[in-house]
Order: sequence, then structure tokens, then C-alpha cells
Amino acid sequence: MATLVVPENVSYVDDARTLQKACQGWGTDEKAITSILGHRNAAQRKQIRLAYSELFQEDLVKRLESELTGDFEKAVYRWVLDPEDRDAVLANVAIRKSGDYHVIVEIACVLSSEELLVVRRAYHARYKHSLEEDLAAHTTGDIRKVLVGLVTAFRYEGDEINTRLANSEADILHDAIKDKAFNHEEVIRILTTRSKAQLMATFNRYRDDHGSSITKDLLDEPADEFKTVLRTAIRCINDHKKYYEKILRNAIKKVGTDEDALTRVIVTRAEKDLNHIKEMYYKKNSVALDQAVAMDTSGDYEAFLLALLGKEE
Amino acid sequence: MATLVVPENVSYVDDARTLQKACQGWGTDEKAITSILGHRNAAQRKQIRLAYSELFQEDLVKRLESELTGDFEKAVYRWVLDPEDRDAVLANVAIRKSGDYHVIVEIACVLSSEELLVVRRAYHARYKHSLEEDLAAHTTGDIRKVLVGLVTAFRYEGDEINTRLANSEADILHDAIKDKAFNHEEVIRILTTRSKAQLMATFNRYRDDHGSSITKDLLDEPADEFKTVLRTAIRCINDHKKYYEKILRNAIKKVGTDEDALTRVIVTRAEKDLNHIKEMYYKKNSVALDQAVAMDTSGDYEAFLLALLGKEE
Repeated sequence: MATLVVPENVSYVDDARTLQKACQGWGTDEKAITSILGHRNAAQRKQIRLAYSELFQEDLVKRLESELTGDFEKAVYRWVLDPEDRDAVLANVAIRKSGDYHVIVEIACVLSSEELLVVRRAYHARYKHSLEEDLAAHTTGDIRKVLVGLVTAFRYEGDEINTRLANSEADILHDAIKDKAFNHEEVIRILTTRSKAQLMATFNRYRDDHGSSITKDLLDEPADEFKTVLRTAIRCINDHKKYYEKILRNAIKKVGTDEDALTRVIVTRAEKDLNHIKEMYYKKNSVALDQAVAMDTSGDYEAFLLALLGKEE
Repeated sequence: MATLVVPENVSYVDDARTLQKACQGWGTDEKAITSILGHRNAAQRKQIRLAYSELFQEDLVKRLESELTGDFEKAVYRWVLDPEDRDAVLANVAIRKSGDYHVIVEIACVLSSEELLVVRRAYHARYKHSLEEDLAAHTTGDIRKVLVGLVTAFRYEGDEINTRLANSEADILHDAIKDKAFNHEEVIRILTTRSKAQLMATFNRYRDDHGSSITKDLLDEPADEFKTVLRTAIRCINDHKKYYEKILRNAIKKVGTDEDALTRVIVTRAEKDLNHIKEMYYKKNSVALDQAVAMDTSGDYEAFLLALLGKEE
């Protein structure tokens, strides 16, 4: 369930005019921007961008970029884009800032096969390269193998599960971890090609047969980049809401707050399942997510995140 | 340019009735089947299948399979399917018959990015697995790496070329071949992720800088499965019509004729560029392709291939 609250009737032309006014003259009316964009869904935002460009012969996204600054700008910029464009941008930034592999893993493993495709198409249009092309050119070795495998997968999405296969592949994964052969080509094959339903059956089988979960067994090993990618992929496939709750928790807990992570999760999930993630957050932290966000952020950035979190002003 | 000749006005119901009649009672009227299906394009064949199923509560494809035999059956079966279903079937047969990797490479490297996607979607629907999943489960090592990379690619299709990159990647390919490191991860990266336009620039640069083409250099090395896959991929990307002409030439030249290859190329290209391939064949062999096919095949199979080749009865 989404947290985003949108009015039923929206005039795109009125919205575009209000946004233009908010950007005019000295200073910017950030509150007006939040009151509009913080309450419009992806389809509405697209229509507003179109109306704005027709009315003012100007790109709304570029205008907002030039008017706003800091974390607020970043959040508004990510939000105002179509979801597939936003993911293409997030992936591209992560590729160039090597080490942010979890962002790439999230896109590859949380999205459905068809959604991932749409992101790959958006990446073409925006960067004149393929996502896997840029990713492969910026990585090497095992990290390249697993990341390229994850982003190029077009997983089968049916419910059919082969239990014998889950059994044998759980053993393959367990043996690899036991032998510390994390980069074994069979590990990469299984994680990058099997359907999510099949993989979940495999992970369950792993836990039942071997007494602890695969993510726990991976965590018990000395951490490195490759193992972290494997673990992130497994967590995103297994239960991405639980994964995102943890990302939010760590982002808020961190001294100084990890605004990039906070923005990413809220902007990416506000129209999807942020309400469920909020509930999980409350259960785990005994404090409401919007309260925690309000404590850790301030100003226009705070107001914008709270709007996306469905917190009425 | 296509070789297929189709009438302007087609009654799908009449066609379905004629086909049903051809399949009724003792014996089958193969001539009637060829005279209809050998002159209908993919969109028309789909409508005929729908009309047939509505009129007779029966699947036309299954009925034809049970009525026909041998090479004629195989050709009609491949032809009557939607192009993406046909490619999914060809890929699946090739995966199970390990060694037929060239069929997989053709699908991955000749189709456009969007066409390849449609095949991957058709593969899901038909086999309840992903194409790369089955492929990876049936292969190992370097062959797996390159084949899975080729089928999962969603290459950028714009014309933009980076000439500096073509330069440096031509050198990488040349060094790898010189060092006999054909399976070098950079070779696989380049061939599986770069756009076709970029790769063609790289291959041209290779030839200009190093005095012979990359396909020739690969041919000069002792043949093995992996090098053959690389070479096939390069040839399909570089000039698939030239590649198919050679496949036809070898299929016909072979003692006993390679009917699988002959059927595959004619059925796959008849609606696309078989006319151009025919012209190339004539130039290279000084005999018309339809004449050569007529000499090497017989009966209903011959008549069907000639119909697809645009040869009027």
C-alpha cells in the first residue's frame, strides 16, 4: 500500500502554473512545490510536466533543478521523474560511483521482470548505452559477473516451483558457502537465472535442511563487496519490504543521517508499498517512521519527505 | 526484402475451412496446405489459427503436426507459429540438443533488441522458464558465459559510435586473439554488451589496424566450440545476410542436405530479407537458390520451400 495521498481531481494546467509561479522572481516558493508535487502520482506528474512544457516552453525538471538545492532538490528531482527514468538515473549514478552496488541490486531484484525491462529501455534513451554495457565497463571479475547477470535477467514470473530443483540447488548453495566458494559459477547461475518463486523455495529449503538461513550464513563470513552483493540480492528477492525497512533504519540511525538512502527508499516506494514498510518500521523501532524522519531532517526536505509519507501538514 | 508472396484479400474463415478439409479423412492434401500457408504472412497465419480454433474447437498447429510427417511437417510447424514462438522453439530445441549453439547465437545476434525481448517473453509463456535459465542450466564454463551474455543482452540500438572506444576495444580483441585468450572476460564483455553499430566500428578498426578481419583471425586458430560461438556471433552482428547465405550454401552442399538448416533459414527469413539473401546466393554460386533447393529436395517439402522462396507454381 502506498503512502502517497493524491486529490481526486487535478488540473494539470493549474498545477503547472502554480509551479511556474513558485519558481519565478527572487527566491523560490518551496512550500508550493511540495504542496503540489508531494501529492501527485506518477501519471499526474507526467501530465504536469507536459502541461508545463507546453505552457512555458521549458522543461520543468531542469527548471526545478536550477531553482532548488541540497537534499530537497535531490528528492524533488528523483520524484518528479517517471519511475523508470528515476531508476535509470539511480543506476547510472551508482555505476559511476563504484561501490554503491546495492542500488543496482535493488533495481535488478526488487522490480518485476517487465518493470526492469522498462528501466533498461529508459536507460537506452537517456544514456545512449545499455545499462549492462555501462555496468560491465565499470566493473571487473566476480562483481561484474553477478551484477551484469542480475540486471540482464528476465526472470520467469509464474508460480510453478520445482521442489526437487529447490532441494538440489539449496545443496549447491550450501556447499559453496561451506567451501567459501562464494563466486562459484553455479552460485551466480542460480541467483541470476531462477525465478523468484523458485529461489524463495530454494532459500526455504536451505534453511530447513541446514538449520540457518543463507543470509545468516553469508553474514557469518568475513564481509567483502562480492558477498555483500550476493546477500543484498537474496534479501531483495526474499522480502524487499523487510530489506527496505532495514535500509531506512540504518539511514536514520547513522550519525548525520544517510539522506541518499532515505530519499531513495521513500521516493521509490511512496507509490508502491511504503505503508507496509512504515508498519514494519514501527514494529521494529517502536517509533513511527514519519516521527523518526521529522527528528532527523529539517526544512523543505523534511516537509517533502513527510508529504510522500502521507503525513498531512 | 521478403520472398513471400501473399494475396491482398484473404478470408481467414475460408482458409481455415480449406485447411480443415485438407486434414480430413484418409490422407492429407499437402498441396492445399502449401497453397494456403505458403502464401500467408505472420499476421494472416495468426488470424487463420484463431479462425480455425473458433470454427473447429481444435488447435491448427497440433492438427498439422499429427497429419504431416518428416521435413515437410517440420517446415510447416515452424512456419505456422508466430515468429517469436518459432524462435523460442528453435532455441529450446537447440538448448536440449547441446552443440547447436549457432541457432542460439543467431537468435541473440540477428534479432533487434526489442525482437529478442519478445522471444524471451514467448519462451516464458511456452516453457515456464526463462531462456537464460534453461540455457545456463544446460551449459557450463566459457560457453555458458558467452551464450547467456548474448541472449540476455538488450543492446542499445542507436547509431552513435565512439571511435576512441572502437580503437581501444579493437586492440583488446586483437591482443586476446594474439595471446590465445579467447575466453578473456573483456572479450566476452565487449561482444555481449556493446551496441551493434559500435561493434561494427570495432571490427572495422580491427581489420584496418591489424591487416586482417577478426573472423579470419579466429578461423586461423584451431577450431573449438567456444571460438565457433564467438565467430558466429561476430558474423551475425556484422552481416547476417552474408552469414545466412553461407549457411544455405553449406546446407545444400552437404552430402544428404542439411534440411534443418535449410528449413530454418528459409522459414525465418522468408518474410524479412530472403530476397537479398537469394541475390547473394546467386552471386556466390552462379545458380539460383530456388533451383538449388529444387535439386536438393523433393515432394511436398520442396514445394513448400519453393512457395516461401516466392517461386510461383
